[in-house]
Amino acid sequence: MAVLGTVAVEVFILVAALIGIAFAVLQWYVVARVAVISDAGGGAGGKGRGGGSGDVLEEDEEEEYGVDRLAVEARCAEIQQAISIGAMSFLLTEYKYLAVFMAAFAAVIFLFLGSARRFSARPEPCAYDPARGCRPALANAAFSAVAFLLGALTSVLSGYLGMRVATFANARTALEAHRGIDRAFAIAFRSGAAMGFLLASSALLVLYAAINLFGLYYGDDWGGLYESITDYGLGGSSVALFGRVGGGIYTKAADVGADLVGKVERNIPEDDPRNPAVIADNVGDNVGDIAGMGSDLFGSYAELLCAALFVASISSFGTEHNFAAMMYPLLVSAVGLLVCAVTTLVATDVSTVECTDEIGPILKRQILISTVLMTGGVAAVTFLALPARFTLFDFGNDKHVKNWHLFICVSAGLWAGLVIGYVTEYFTSNAYGPVRAVARSCRTGAATNVIFGLAVGYKSVIVSILAIAAAIYAGFRLAAMYGIALAALGMLSTIATGLAIDAYGPISDNAGGIAEMAGMPRRVRDRTDALDAAGNTTAAIGKGFAIGSAALVSLALFGAYESRAGIAAVDVLSPRVFVGLLAGAMLPYWFSAMTMRSVGSAALRMVEEVRRQFDAIPGLAEGLATPDYATCVRISTDASLRKMMAPGALVMLSPLVAGTLFGVETLAGLLAGALVSGVQVAISASNSGGAWDNAKKYIENGASEEARSLGPKGSEAHKAAVIGDTIGDPLKDTSGPSLNILIKLMAVESLVFAPFFAAHGGIIFNRL
Amino acid sequence: MAVLGTVAVEVFILVAALIGIAFAVLQWYVVARVAVISDAGGGAGGKGRGGGSGDVLEEDEEEEYGVDRLAVEARCAEIQQAISIGAMSFLLTEYKYLAVFMAAFAAVIFLFLGSARRFSARPEPCAYDPARGCRPALANAAFSAVAFLLGALTSVLSGYLGMRVATFANARTALEAHRGIDRAFAIAFRSGAAMGFLLASSALLVLYAAINLFGLYYGDDWGGLYESITDYGLGGSSVALFGRVGGGIYTKAADVGADLVGKVERNIPEDDPRNPAVIADNVGDNVGDIAGMGSDLFGSYAELLCAALFVASISSFGTEHNFAAMMYPLLVSAVGLLVCAVTTLVATDVSTVECTDEIGPILKRQILISTVLMTGGVAAVTFLALPARFTLFDFGNDKHVKNWHLFICVSAGLWAGLVIGYVTEYFTSNAYGPVRAVARSCRTGAATNVIFGLAVGYKSVIVSILAIAAAIYAGFRLAAMYGIALAALGMLSTIATGLAIDAYGPISDNAGGIAEMAGMPRRVRDRTDALDAAGNTTAAIGKGFAIGSAALVSLALFGAYESRAGIAAVDVLSPRVFVGLLAGAMLPYWFSAMTMRSVGSAALRMVEEVRRQFDAIPGLAEGLATPDYATCVRISTDASLRKMMAPGALVMLSPLVAGTLFGVETLAGLLAGALVSGVQVAISASNSGGAWDNAKKYIENGASEEARSLGPKGSEAHKAAVIGDTIGDPLKDTSGPSLNILIKLMAVESLVFAPFFAAHGGIIFNRL
Repeated sequence: MAVLGTVAVEVFILVAALIGIAFAVLQWYVVARVAVISDAGGGAGGKGRGGGSGDVLEEDEEEEYGVDRLAVEARCAEIQQAISIGAMSFLLTEYKYLAVFMAAFAAVIFLFLGSARRFSARPEPCAYDPARGCRPALANAAFSAVAFLLGALTSVLSGYLGMRVATFANARTALEAHRGIDRAFAIAFRSGAAMGFLLASSALLVLYAAINLFGLYYGDDWGGLYESITDYGLGGSSVALFGRVGGGIYTKAADVGADLVGKVERNIPEDDPRNPAVIADNVGDNVGDIAGMGSDLFGSYAELLCAALFVASISSFGTEHNFAAMMYPLLVSAVGLLVCAVTTLVATDVSTVECTDEIGPILKRQILISTVLMTGGVAAVTFLALPARFTLFDFGNDKHVKNWHLFICVSAGLWAGLVIGYVTEYFTSNAYGPVRAVARSCRTGAATNVIFGLAVGYKSVIVSILAIAAAIYAGFRLAAMYGIALAALGMLSTIATGLAIDAYGPISDNAGGIAEMAGMPRRVRDRTDALDAAGNTTAAIGKGFAIGSAALVSLALFGAYESRAGIAAVDVLSPRVFVGLLAGAMLPYWFSAMTMRSVGSAALRMVEEVRRQFDAIPGLAEGLATPDYATCVRISTDASLRKMMAPGALVMLSPLVAGTLFGVETLAGLLAGALVSGVQVAISASNSGGAWDNAKKYIENGASEEARSLGPKGSEAHKAAVIGDTIGDPLKDTSGPSLNILIKLMAVESLVFAPFFAAHGGIIFNRL
Repeated sequence: MAVLGTVAVEVFILVAALIGIAFAVLQWYVVARVAVISDAGGGAGGKGRGGGSGDVLEEDEEEEYGVDRLAVEARCAEIQQAISIGAMSFLLTEYKYLAVFMAAFAAVIFLFLGSARRFSARPEPCAYDPARGCRPALANAAFSAVAFLLGALTSVLSGYLGMRVATFANARTALEAHRGIDRAFAIAFRSGAAMGFLLASSALLVLYAAINLFGLYYGDDWGGLYESITDYGLGGSSVALFGRVGGGIYTKAADVGADLVGKVERNIPEDDPRNPAVIADNVGDNVGDIAGMGSDLFGSYAELLCAALFVASISSFGTEHNFAAMMYPLLVSAVGLLVCAVTTLVATDVSTVECTDEIGPILKRQILISTVLMTGGVAAVTFLALPARFTLFDFGNDKHVKNWHLFICVSAGLWAGLVIGYVTEYFTSNAYGPVRAVARSCRTGAATNVIFGLAVGYKSVIVSILAIAAAIYAGFRLAAMYGIALAALGMLSTIATGLAIDAYGPISDNAGGIAEMAGMPRRVRDRTDALDAAGNTTAAIGKGFAIGSAALVSLALFGAYESRAGIAAVDVLSPRVFVGLLAGAMLPYWFSAMTMRSVGSAALRMVEEVRRQFDAIPGLAEGLATPDYATCVRISTDASLRKMMAPGALVMLSPLVAGTLFGVETLAGLLAGALVSGVQVAISASNSGGAWDNAKKYIENGASEEARSLGPKGSEAHKAAVIGDTIGDPLKDTSGPSLNILIKLMAVESLVFAPFFAAHGGIIFNRL
């Protein structure tokens, strides 16, 4: 029926994943050609840099450096080293904790799933075709635990590699910024791309390998196969949860703590080397915004692929064993990798950055180009891989679907993503009205700034939610739950580009920090600041994508859960469902309360330490002594590891408690409530934060008449803007982005444990 | 079957309502015995005051006044006059706008409901007993419009009378505060009680009269009768919406504007007569916190009675025409009035206030006493009025219910209310940890204060939501939708006491303002401040009740809507429902964005005006000239009237648009989404605001070692606390409390228009 055969599909996915990895390595290679002096005496720097990218400095710039040039470059290398060591040591400690947790949770999975059928080792009748025999429950439990560990491991790898790329690139970006804005942009962007492609390709490759390896045992029991594969997504998201929360607390405790003493009390600039928390702050960018975000998007990606595969396995693709159609989600992802590679070449090899104003539009254009190209790619793969018409199971009803319906589903998600991206940009970039109104409100102080910033965040929810709702309606209507999964797939199909422009932000931020700390000339800092300002907006866009796709993925997982738990309808007007709905809508608030408080109290400890050092170390304020960076790093590390437990437990335990005590229907309500409420909290938190951050930058940059009237740095209006920015920090980088993991993770966990809940759940409500 | 006959029920309700009104008049009379000098030369003050409450001042106090005493008292009267005129003129203007709107909306109701059956004037077969003939659709449409206007009128009356009582009592409280804290407390509390009883009794009385009058036409067509009566609730809530939003914008624009220039820039105390916005601020307390809140709680009360009656009318009570059972909700309300009267006597005649610390506990004890007494009252009325067993219709299924089931439903709501009250007190009173932690975080500035305050608000949601969920589950499980309505009834059955302690707060606040402006001795202001601090917490408790009961009422209305629209189940997993759910959860954010922005921009205009006056009027800062209060009053009036339109339209139009374009199922999703998301936003907003306000007061009062280390007024920590308080103002007094109207009003409006949507709705989705 369809054009592509099994072998062609297998080869295409494999080749695309390998191309993705090769592309990442290529970007890394280009970045690596910028050398960093690894010891103060070496001349390797010059040599390396001369290796291909041209070494001619303008004369006056050369002069600024003067005789100190080598010393400054050596300091760059030193700082990079310190950041890298701090980030590595945090991640390794975090992963040690996670290893214990993951092992324990894998055991829980095995026990719960095994016990649903009393650890039976006998073949079961297949769920959707009881006449045939399928693999025993014990095997499913064991494979599920393995898939979970595999997902967790890949997620750890994603975070770790991302962090390595970023800490490798930060000093290089700073050094290149000395040569010109275009070069700095190219290095930061290529590093982001290296991370994006590495992560997207390895997610695809590992999943693909797992399907093929598990397939050796499962044979044509595709139901069992894709049920166990689902745990790959759960593993990925579990690590992402702790990565996001832990990293988020780390980075914001350091950032808020550093700002409160440095900017507000001591009146020293951001990233000033005299500030004891400055290294912790820069480490935070890497473990939170890079490693945490990497794990998060990997989790979304893995989960949506698992959700789509699970739903497909119970459609006619699965029952008729149509491999090409079954692999449709992976094929779309594979095409996505190729499209993103082409898109990236436009940024690195076609566009040139002449001045700082061009950076934002170039990044924005990346999203547009990848969306347009991807629409063509999706069309091609849809008509090549899918039969013209086929059947989906829509909760017991057969739903007849045509292949172009699926094209619409994927495209709906893809374009909804573009809308979310553009809306987010409108509300968080200081080129438009909303952020400028927030900046203007600083004239009357911090209170009005906060009121206007909250209002901007709330307002930014409207269009994004309508775009998500439209994608949901299109997907649902045309292809039931599979359509939703495909809409999510569409939104994340250009993940490599999304990650590239997202990772670009913290890399530039770090580069600015290094330039400041190493005492590079003012113009270097100005250039990295320009890179960073564009990065703020792209970070908000990235969060928008993450949240939008999380909503779609969760809904698809939710549908799959219903189907696996054997619930025919989730009626809001049943008491069990409604109390779940109400309690679920409360969970994002409980979770946010915990994470906000954690950041707050960790920041207070950081403030005390920084103040203590300024008082205790003579000459620190004058720059004559070196602060004790290590203690601040330790405070952030301890606080984040200790404080990530409670919110993590809340997310992991809520579905287990609800399912076990109150039953599958209450759990269904809980998932729906957490989903619809969490999305709003997450979007508004991240956009309020983005708006405050850029309102501050707007005043600092003084780009317009109005901005100059509000500034300069240190004016009353600017101080009010700094307060707003500080409040936004935990909202946009800790609570907000963690919430999308909350909704996804609860959904995938419910899906995994559905057989147990269906068999043994509802202890309390069944007695009432 | 039951003990009470029709006549006994009729008499009991009527007598209880009249007792309530008499009790209110009695309280008013006691308050009125404190005379205010109406012109500077009169001696009436002394005479009136001597009339019974003793006129002997302690000697030193007498001395403080010195020769200025008469002048100060005359100034009191003058200020009271100014506040009263400002409040009256705002309300009259607002009501003029509302009159136009209400007339238009009554026409819409008539047209929509009439057109559902093509304006047929022929008798229809009864909905729940098609063999019998019921009244024509045209009559239902006409009576609905009349009931709507009646509800609107009663709501206007509630707000207006409340405002009159409050502006009558404020100066009297200030004058009595001069004589002692116990006297001031008694006056403020009695005034609150006068308002509470007036409002609760007239709500009951008007509804009761309407049922009897409409009954003359409807005869035994109880379905039609209670369908039209439902519009009484819609009318009440529509006025409440504009009252809350308009009043909320008014009061907070003035308050924020006055504080930003006065406290932050000019460093003059709150309510200082030199501040041009001070009269507007005090007017705001009366139109927002008194009139707006009165209309709001009247709306809740009316709606829940209508919802309960509507659901009862389709149970066996209705079909078997059991009048005593049918009137059960009104009987419970009537008992509530009597219980509250006894409770009030405890506060006014048994308790004595010796020192300021006792005020909080006395108010808290009021809630406890009324809850305990009411539990007994509910038991009595349940066993007297209801048959031992009867049948409810639970969406087509018969549900067999015993009378003690209903007792449990009402009690569940009553006690859930108590839990919400106590939780709210814990999170917003400065006697406990959460507010103290917020105060402590001011040490590191406004940013940490805001972060901690937001976290406290988020956290306060948890237990309140679980209490509401428990009441819902109990009600739902035992008596389906009728059970939910009864739980709401339980929570609001002690409304007279709730309103008394709620209104007490703004009256004390105003008294403090008057004392400050009239130049009364310091100790008077200290006493009114102590009254006001307790009032902050009771205001938060009142909001907790309002939100909790709104959730229950909306759910009951939602159930009634389903039944009237003929929807059998609201399946979350249908695309139409889910997109409604998602969009509904977004509405509270959209609404909050509008109201926050309105307050923000109106406050900015106020700030400009206040600054202008300080610059333009020579001698104003030194207290040598009188500011132009009227301009500030006008700014608040204009801003609030203009800015209440858009949020009001959003709430009123959303159900109409959703129902007409997307159909009854999407509308069902929209209601459920708005309900579960709105409750969380409302609770967290009001408790964050309460926590910030009391954290500020904690620092100002310096009641503990820690508090003194943070203060005094004007310290850095105190400035940070003021910023938090200002941010909390629109959250707790504009957005938060308006949200409960949003969820209730959308539900009751959907119920009213259900027949139209069922007949003609879903234009867009039906084509897709």
